[in-house]
Formats: sequence, C-alpha cells, structure tokens
Amino acid sequence: MIISIIGGTDGLGKWFAKYLSSKGYSVIVSGRDKEKGEAVEKELGVIYTQDNIEATKKGDIVILAVPINITEWMIKELAPHVRENCVLMDITSIKEIPTKAMLKYAKKDTFIMPTHPMFGPSTPSLRRQVVILTPPTKEHENNPWFIKIKNFFEEEGARVIIIPPEKHDKIMGVVQGLTHYSYIVLGSTLRELNIDIKESRKYASPIYELMINIIARIIGQNPYLYADIQMHNPQINDIHQTFINECEKIKEIVENNDREAFAKLMKESSKHFGNETIKGMNYSDKAVGAITREVDKLKKSIGKEAGLKHAYSNKVHFGIVKDVVDDFIILDKQGKDLKLSIANTNLMTKEELKQWKEANLKKYYNDISFLFKDNIDIDIILELLKSKYNIEIIDVYKGAPIQEGYKSITFRIYSFKKQDLENLRSSLIRTVENIGGIKRYNTDILN
Amino acid sequence: MIISIIGGTDGLGKWFAKYLSSKGYSVIVSGRDKEKGEAVEKELGVIYTQDNIEATKKGDIVILAVPINITEWMIKELAPHVRENCVLMDITSIKEIPTKAMLKYAKKDTFIMPTHPMFGPSTPSLRRQVVILTPPTKEHENNPWFIKIKNFFEEEGARVIIIPPEKHDKIMGVVQGLTHYSYIVLGSTLRELNIDIKESRKYASPIYELMINIIARIIGQNPYLYADIQMHNPQINDIHQTFINECEKIKEIVENNDREAFAKLMKESSKHFGNETIKGMNYSDKAVGAITREVDKLKKSIGKEAGLKHAYSNKVHFGIVKDVVDDFIILDKQGKDLKLSIANTNLMTKEELKQWKEANLKKYYNDISFLFKDNIDIDIILELLKSKYNIEIIDVYKGAPIQEGYKSITFRIYSFKKQDLENLRSSLIRTVENIGGIKRYNTDILN
Repeated sequence: MIISIIGGTDGLGKWFAKYLSSKGYSVIVSGRDKEKGEAVEKELGVIYTQDNIEATKKGDIVILAVPINITEWMIKELAPHVRENCVLMDITSIKEIPTKAMLKYAKKDTFIMPTHPMFGPSTPSLRRQVVILTPPTKEHENNPWFIKIKNFFEEEGARVIIIPPEKHDKIMGVVQGLTHYSYIVLGSTLRELNIDIKESRKYASPIYELMINIIARIIGQNPYLYADIQMHNPQINDIHQTFINECEKIKEIVENNDREAFAKLMKESSKHFGNETIKGMNYSDKAVGAITREVDKLKKSIGKEAGLKHAYSNKVHFGIVKDVVDDFIILDKQGKDLKLSIANTNLMTKEELKQWKEANLKKYYNDISFLFKDNIDIDIILELLKSKYNIEIIDVYKGAPIQEGYKSITFRIYSFKKQDLENLRSSLIRTVENIGGIKRYNTDILN
Repeated sequence: MIISIIGGTDGLGKWFAKYLSSKGYSVIVSGRDKEKGEAVEKELGVIYTQDNIEATKKGDIVILAVPINITEWMIKELAPHVRENCVLMDITSIKEIPTKAMLKYAKKDTFIMPTHPMFGPSTPSLRRQVVILTPPTKEHENNPWFIKIKNFFEEEGARVIIIPPEKHDKIMGVVQGLTHYSYIVLGSTLRELNIDIKESRKYASPIYELMINIIARIIGQNPYLYADIQMHNPQINDIHQTFINECEKIKEIVENNDREAFAKLMKESSKHFGNETIKGMNYSDKAVGAITREVDKLKKSIGKEAGLKHAYSNKVHFGIVKDVVDDFIILDKQGKDLKLSIANTNLMTKEELKQWKEANLKKYYNDISFLFKDNIDIDIILELLKSKYNIEIIDVYKGAPIQEGYKSITFRIYSFKKQDLENLRSSLIRTVENIGGIKRYNTDILN
C-alpha cells in the first residue's frame, strides 16, 4: 500500500510520513521546496516528488497536509487525479469547508476521509492522542476504507471520535479557537504593559508561571497556522464577542467594588463546571507539581548518578549530580562540569538510564570461573549477584578435570567503563568466595 | 515565643497556625466563629480565643490573617494593643494599603512586617514557595526582628523577595490580577456559550485541558478573596483595559482575515518574551506531560503492586493494579476491587510506599539462625540478602556450643502479611543454604 502525503515535507505531514514509514508503509511525500523535500527523502527513507499531481496519482491513500487557507483550492486541483477506488483524506483543523470541498470535487469512486488529528508534530506517538473523523454520511461510516483507517488509529492507541463536520467546527471554535485567542491576547497584553517576563517569574505564583509557559508555547509556534484556525472557523466571531462581553462585565463589577456580584459570577461558573471543578483543581495540582517534583528528585540525587534526556534532540547526558541551582542542574560528566537547563531536559528513571546505556554504550567485560558444589542452585546465586553486578552466566561445566561433586560456573561481568573492570572483578571474586564459590585455577583449597 | 494569629481559624491563617505549631512555637488563634475556633484548637493543639484584642495582647508576633477588605480597619483597631517591642505582621496579597495603615496606627516601638506569602493553604510546606516582604524603609530592613523573620522563612526553604510596597502592588496586578481576571473571564465565557465541560474534554488538546483545569482551580476557590485582590489593587483598571484593547485588536484582525497582521502580532509577543518563549514551551511540555506520564506508569504497573496517596486526605491505598480505564485506576486491595480517581490520587514511588509501610503497617517477623564459616564476611551476605528480603541480623555468636571455625548468625525476616512469613522463611532457608549457610539445630552435616 502506498500512502502519498501532499505537503509531507513539513509539520504534521512530515510527522505522518515518518510515523507511517516506520510502520512499514511505502510513503511518497510532495512539497514545493525541492531542497527540503530531498532532505526529508534522505532523513525518513521515503520518496519525494515536487509534483503534487504525480504523488496523488500514485497513492492508495492520499493525505492532504497543506495549510488550511489553501486546502479547498488543493482539493479542487488534486481530487480528479486520485486513482480509482482510492482514498482522499485531509488533516486540517477545520472540517466543514474541506468536507464540502471533497464532496464537491472528488470522483464518485473516491472515498473521502475528513480527519482532524488533535496533536502537533512534537507528539512522540499516537498513543492517547485524539483523532476526530467527520464522515459526512452514515454510508461513509460503513465503508471498508473508513473502518480500516479507524482501526489503524485505534490499534496505535489513539482515541477516535466520530462527529459531523459542523459539530466539529463548533466545538473546535472553543477548544482551539477560544484557547488560542485568550493566550494570544494575554501575550499581547504583557507586551503592551511592558512586563519583563523573566523578572516577573520571580514573583510568580505556580498558576502565573503555568500561564506564562502556556502563552510561550502558543506564541512560539507557526503564527499562520493559528491565524487560519481563527479565520476559517465560522463560529469564531461569536466566541470572541462573548469573551469580550464577559471581560467588560467583570471589569465593571471590579470598578463598582461589587464583591457580591463578583462572588455570584464565580460561583455560577463553578456551578456550570459541576464535578469538573474539583477534578480540574486536582489535575491542575499535578500539572503545577510536575516541575517541583522533578526538581525535588534532582536535589535528592545530588552525589548520585542521574541521566537527563534533552527535550527535543533526545540527546542523553549522564553523570554525578553536583548541584541544582534555580533552573539549572550541574552534572559531573567524567570529571567535567556540565550545566544543563531543567526546562530543556527530562530526568530519566534509573531503569530508563540503564536501558539507554545498554543500547548505546560500549560494554567491556571480563570472564571469571568458579567452582561450586554440584548441588548448589545456581539461579539463586545469579539472582543475588545481579542485585550488585551487571552479570550473566556464560558457561556451566561438569566432568574432568573438575573434581567430582563440583561444577564450574563461568560468569561474565560487564562495565560501561573499562577502567572499572579490574575493581569489579576483585569485588566479584570477594563476594563469590564469601557465598561458597572457589575461584578456579586457584584450587589448592580443594586438595 | 508566642505567635498570635488573628483570623487563624481558617485559610492561610490556619495554615500558619498549623505550620508554626508543628515547629514548636506556642500559637494563639482568634476568629469570630467560636465553634470553628474550638475545633481548630482541638485539631492543631493551639489556643483559641474569640477576642482579637486578647490574642493581640499576648503575642510576641501578631499576624493579621484577615480578609483584605477589613485589613485596614483591623490594623487600626488592634495596633494599639500590640505589646512593647513586639511585631505586627500582615499576610494579605496587597501591600500598599496595609503597609501605610501599619505605619499610621502602630505604636513607635512596634515593629511592622508587611508580608505576602505567595501560596495557598493547600501547599504542603514553605519549601520553594515565594514570600514577599515589603519593608517601607531601609531602617526596617536592618531591624533584628526583620532579620529574624526573614531567616526563618529562608531556613524553611522559602524564596524571600524584598521590594517596596508600591512595586509589589504593580507586579501583583499582573501576576495575580491579570491571571485571575483572564481565567475568570474564560470560565464565564464557557458558561455563557453553554459548553458542556465534561463533553468538551473528549475533544481536548492538552492545552485546552490544562486551561480547563486552571479555570477550575480558580473558580473553585473562595470568590471573595479573588474579588478583593482585584478590587484593592490601584493598577487593576489599567490592566483590564489593556487586556480588552488587545481582545478587540485581535478580533478585528481575525474579522479582516489579515493573516500577516496576526502573524506580526504573535511574533512581536514572542520577541517580547525572548528566551522565555523556548523555556516556557519546554516547561509547558512538562506540565502537559505530567498526567500522561502518570497514566503510563500506572499502565506499566498492571499486575504489580502500586501505592496511591489521596491528594487531600493523604490516605494511602495500595494493592495490585488490575486496570486503568479513562480517569480511573482499579486496584485489587486484598481481594477486593477498589476504583480510585487518578485526578484525586498521586502515584507513590516504590521507595515512598516502602517507607509508608514501614511507618504505618504492623510488621511480622521470624528469626532463623544459621552457621557460617568463621572467615565469612557477613556484611556481604547481608547486602545480597537485602536485595531479596526485608531482613536484618540480630545476633552474631561464636564459641560453645558452636563448633570451632564457625559462627552463628541469626537473621530476622519481616513481612507486612503474617500469612506470607512461612513462605518467606522457607525461601530464606533455601537461599542461605545455597550460599554456604547451614541451618542450626539441624547440624548433622557438620558431624
């Protein structure tokens, strides 16, 4: 099966190209920028073409991953070129306009699949991500293509929601439109008031800090995507106006020093939220506590080894934690101090660091043979030794030249540092000799 | 030293009463509601009086923890009763008005300490919390009382900031005023638009969910406190108006479909944020990921033991994780299914659960003696056994009737479940016999 992604050299289109190709699908991406396209071809091992029509003709599934403002136009241009009985899918964040356009321009035998993946290209996988499908009719929902694609998302761990395109746009007007709008307004207000953001963090309550972080998250992204989400939603005007009305209402209450009206308004909102109020309070505690808890863990690990994974590059740094100061952690990495920003890195669990080392570092080893009495359960010995060493058994041997009643066990002991092997070897010999083992080639004790 | 807390039967006043009394200070609380006061007296082991003046007269430090709107009036009433060379402190979230009032009404020998603890009563300790002090003059800053109180906060791990009261109110107008205002407006807008909050979560992006949780956190609290923070800040009108202007500006840009103007505005905000943009994006990832990560950990622990601590009651539940469904975790607690909300509980680390069990559960134990060769290093043996058992050594013995060349070691093995002891005992015997130990009173092997 070939999946063609129009606009697959960037953003969420590129994300799908990577994801689908890692799942074994043949992926073709198209995009205007040839240099970028060829880089993506190399990076992901997919096929790139500059020609959207060529990509469209080759795909069993054609995914449109182009900006909202040109989606309708692209559907008109490409729909006639989709192969017989194949799929035309779009992944824009609005659904009414593209669904209508696909209905209008797609051939009769083309199956249309209007889709809104509710996540951005920084998401690691589909797990727990929401994917909204807006089939225009019941017939669409029963089409084998629909079922196949829906099942794919669900098998990958996504939460699939099926609603009509109009309902989608109404809800999204709030979930995306209002959310983005209010944080963009906040960012703009802070600029107008000329607030020094870094300085203001010093006085920050946890909620202010969280708000600043969310504003930053939004204003730091592609502004055209956010513009289009606002501008192509037919509901957005109404939502903006309602928001402004509430602003005015509350401003006036404050000007009038009307405590009772203020309290009434807050209580009514809380009542409207219902059970979601207490649930939200608790979940916000978890969000607020996320950073504090990480800093606490880092402080507790001073003097011990810790691994930190960079948020975007995924590069791993590990070493002995020397200190935690403000937003930074000082790591002793093989004798050199390394200063890492807590914002940009994530603390790995011991298990994660161990797995990462196993997969990425060169391991050195040493083999040592011991004699044990023949009736000893070697699994018990190994279990105990594993709590202290990175170790396995590579050989068990009985018979000549081993004396009767004994067996020879050869352990392989590993280290990520060559210079530690000698000490580990001595330590292992000492430990094993204390639990009944006798080092071989040193067997005078037996005679 | 006696610390009197006026309004110490509720909210942050009660929080300080509990905290200071746990640190060994004698605490007196006063408050209008006698029933509540007597309950607090019992709960915290402090002294309650209904009479504010009596409480004021007895304290070395008198802390005013009353609502903002009556703080000025209370200062006027109580300041004359503060004992000679003692301290009058307020802990309201505005500082210009109370500082001026204390300067006006306090006696010459009274040391005034305007303070703004920037946290709520759900905070577990002072660690990493911001406390703002607004001494009106340099002279105040050098007063021994000032240094003493400042040192107390810092020793408890708080981050102390010293600024003039006017600057405090200006910054707080943004950090608290604007933050609260925008989330209260959002809550009110969602109510006006009649959005079903629970239903809307289904379509939620991580940022919408976080926003909903923060709105809930704010609208779920005491509205009069929030009203007073808005109404007593001289800067707030200006801030509201700037916010509304930005709302109008962006609404118009969207109406005009002016993508370039929208992008320019977002970019300007991002430029104003500077380095804080990327920092905020990364920190928001941590906040957004906090819940996902917890759910992932819970899912990974299906079939294993987990401990969950209730967010407010601190009650601990532990058992085998059976399943994780939506916002709930199903725990097998001694054969009975227990359904816990993930929102209301926090997953404990293995170490935390272990420590909690040590502190809270009855431990059962069994003693078993073994003979080891005299030259065995028993510390090595114990270290290995501790990786597998909850165990300690309670006796080491040499001499008659123990045969020469041997020593007797008595282990004590623990379990939180009495019915498991027998199996643990058999397992320990099997293990120790495989690492060179010989069970005593069973010593025919030696002869």
